[in-house]
Amino acid sequence: MAEEIKSLHDLLDEDPEILDNINVLIEEEAAQSLLTIFADIHPADIAEIINHLDVDHARYVFGLLDTETASEVLVELDENIREKILEEIDALKIADIVDELDTDDATDIVSELPDQIAEQVLENIEPESSEDVKELLKYEEDTAGGIMNSDFVHVYENATIADAIDQVRHKADDIDHIYHVYVLKHHDELVGFVHIKSLLIHPLTTKINTILEEDLITVNPHDDQEIVAKLMKKYDLVSIPVVDSHGIMLGRITIDDVVDVIGEEAEEDIQKFAGLSEEEEISDSSFKISRIRLPWLFVALFGELVSAVVLSSFQASIEKILIASFFIPIVMAMGGSSGTQAAIVMVRRLAEHEIWIKDSFKKILKEFFVGLFNGFICGIILILATHFLFKTEIQFSFVLSVSLIVIMVFATVVGATVPLFLKRFGADPAIATGPFVTTMNDIFGLSIYLSIITFFYMH
Amino acid sequence: MAEEIKSLHDLLDEDPEILDNINVLIEEEAAQSLLTIFADIHPADIAEIINHLDVDHARYVFGLLDTETASEVLVELDENIREKILEEIDALKIADIVDELDTDDATDIVSELPDQIAEQVLENIEPESSEDVKELLKYEEDTAGGIMNSDFVHVYENATIADAIDQVRHKADDIDHIYHVYVLKHHDELVGFVHIKSLLIHPLTTKINTILEEDLITVNPHDDQEIVAKLMKKYDLVSIPVVDSHGIMLGRITIDDVVDVIGEEAEEDIQKFAGLSEEEEISDSSFKISRIRLPWLFVALFGELVSAVVLSSFQASIEKILIASFFIPIVMAMGGSSGTQAAIVMVRRLAEHEIWIKDSFKKILKEFFVGLFNGFICGIILILATHFLFKTEIQFSFVLSVSLIVIMVFATVVGATVPLFLKRFGADPAIATGPFVTTMNDIFGLSIYLSIITFFYMH
Repeated sequence: MAEEIKSLHDLLDEDPEILDNINVLIEEEAAQSLLTIFADIHPADIAEIINHLDVDHARYVFGLLDTETASEVLVELDENIREKILEEIDALKIADIVDELDTDDATDIVSELPDQIAEQVLENIEPESSEDVKELLKYEEDTAGGIMNSDFVHVYENATIADAIDQVRHKADDIDHIYHVYVLKHHDELVGFVHIKSLLIHPLTTKINTILEEDLITVNPHDDQEIVAKLMKKYDLVSIPVVDSHGIMLGRITIDDVVDVIGEEAEEDIQKFAGLSEEEEISDSSFKISRIRLPWLFVALFGELVSAVVLSSFQASIEKILIASFFIPIVMAMGGSSGTQAAIVMVRRLAEHEIWIKDSFKKILKEFFVGLFNGFICGIILILATHFLFKTEIQFSFVLSVSLIVIMVFATVVGATVPLFLKRFGADPAIATGPFVTTMNDIFGLSIYLSIITFFYMH
Repeated sequence: MAEEIKSLHDLLDEDPEILDNINVLIEEEAAQSLLTIFADIHPADIAEIINHLDVDHARYVFGLLDTETASEVLVELDENIREKILEEIDALKIADIVDELDTDDATDIVSELPDQIAEQVLENIEPESSEDVKELLKYEEDTAGGIMNSDFVHVYENATIADAIDQVRHKADDIDHIYHVYVLKHHDELVGFVHIKSLLIHPLTTKINTILEEDLITVNPHDDQEIVAKLMKKYDLVSIPVVDSHGIMLGRITIDDVVDVIGEEAEEDIQKFAGLSEEEEISDSSFKISRIRLPWLFVALFGELVSAVVLSSFQASIEKILIASFFIPIVMAMGGSSGTQAAIVMVRRLAEHEIWIKDSFKKILKEFFVGLFNGFICGIILILATHFLFKTEIQFSFVLSVSLIVIMVFATVVGATVPLFLKRFGADPAIATGPFVTTMNDIFGLSIYLSIITFFYMH
């Protein structure tokens, strides 16, 4: 009888009070009842529950878990909670838990520990894992080396299918995800791979080098994890080998680690759209969140102080045509929106490699027409709205609309161009969507608007 | 000797003129030279090149490809280009290409064809595929049923390892990605699965039901593809079975299809941040892009007309304290930025299920303090800046800063609350990040600012 694992959201649907119930059981130290509940829940969901508990409760629950479950839960925990739980656990116990993990996950955990504890853990895990983890610790966290697993199934090029099957048997317990057997030659240089299904299809005596696939897509351990994600996504890979500059195979990255990266990279772009200086963790304090958000606010504040200077330099015009001040919000919002739309679209296109720098001119020209067309439509609406709503003279409405069109075209072209420009010079295009372009568009937009007003009314 | 497949970006690095060269070869109709170039390139990259060609050139190149390559290229093409290429190809030829595809990809292609052509294609592909595709066409494109493959390796519960291996052999050619053998009982009810590696480990006579894993995470064919992506990401799955309400297995979804979905869903959120009414395709005309972007611009335009009305209602105050108008941009930008930051963070947290509605009050309280703290710091800077830069009276600077603090707290709390509110009532929280909240914050922000100024100066 198939037994469905219940996801946490099913549980929450059935019993919205489950977290409260768990808290009560923790206070009663009802270990057995808690373990009964957790027995039916996936480790990823146990981690989600622990993320929502107070630190003391989180520690208590984590302490109840057997070593294997603890290891699976640990890697899924929120980083802050994990740190707080681990700081109360003995290094020997941590070593037991780390021993259950794949080398890539083990490395992530060890890298977060205080140096002294990390050393003790490394001394107490299996010597082979310890070597692997020490090797992996050399790579930056967000590189191919940082997410690769150094344990993989391999044979040498003179092996047979039978040898390959032996290797799979030998590693089956240690490696959760086996998709390929890699084929190496002397000095561990990677030659090709065979799909695990091929081992079932060919006779046992078949030489591996007669069925091996040689078309290899590989990454270097220092490649950014974003590159790894893009290659795996583009070429529909479940696993990608990591080789050094001599072609020596160092490890492999599996899709489950990269799925998280795909999320992370999109999150990073969204972070930049929101002008956050780093990722906000849910457990961050108000004070830390403030610090993360302040840089954008500073840019906006200082930029708009410049806008205030611009406005003050047109004081005479504003005094004479006070009604001009009423439309400052329109000018700012329409310039800001047009620019942001163009910038975000361009940033995503560049991120997806859909646009090549070569095509830039054509794309910017297209954006010019988009800005012109939208400006024209909004301009006509504005003439009608101001004339009927504010009873402005038709001349003023006309001048206002011309300004709007100029500003929208300008903002759209700037919004599309800045990311291309940044990309061209090796900078991250996504920063163009943050406060810089918005504020710049405000300053230029207001200058254009007031200059046009002044030109028509003061001369 | 391992032969590395060159990715298109390697090629472009080596020869930035490759596209020009290809265009020249196409004009010379140098079919052999083109095929030699394409022989070393992955189908996904051939598709990328074709996406960058004019329609006539694209059709010519596509026509050169052998059926298998054509099928692999077809699924990777930009939708508009694909449509234009296929409309010039004979239905029988399309049927040949579709026959090479997995049923999920075949269904996608057939669903895009004009009805009459689709019928002809369905009549001319293998009868079994035709049945499968007709079945799959019943599901919406963005549901589990719409992305599942109805071909999978399965055995019944009384089978042995040897039977399972036979099934793998039987299906190995038709199914690219085999990770599991699914175990069914009568009426095709799903009972469990075995990893393909298990077939290599156990003796051939072992009964499948003694080694099968029964902890199943499944989806229903009508579940949104976003749910599928979330489950596969959360539980690190490479493949997930699709079962109907009776537990009957209908198909399975593999991670390579879901990796694209993860991108798509993040793109959708980004689209909403940019206020785009639908996805922009790179091949869309300026006119179509305008139409996609206009709705946000209309909301902004009409919203800021309300702002203009608000400003006009404070005409007396602005006339008396003209300097107050200089700081309209600061008030708008700081409110807008604070609100957008809070809203985007909240939307992503909700999307990642990191926040439960239960926690809402605590989160909003935290945002209140974030707004207060950031408002306070920006307020102090503003007092100093205005006093020294604009030589304003200290009283005015003080009133301005108090307004700023109130507005930033207000905008931050609104930005965080609206997504929670939308989620609570079953709407998409992401729409909160678009023009509505920004415009609302502008209107309220300006009202707060001018009310405070009026209160201090006019009474």
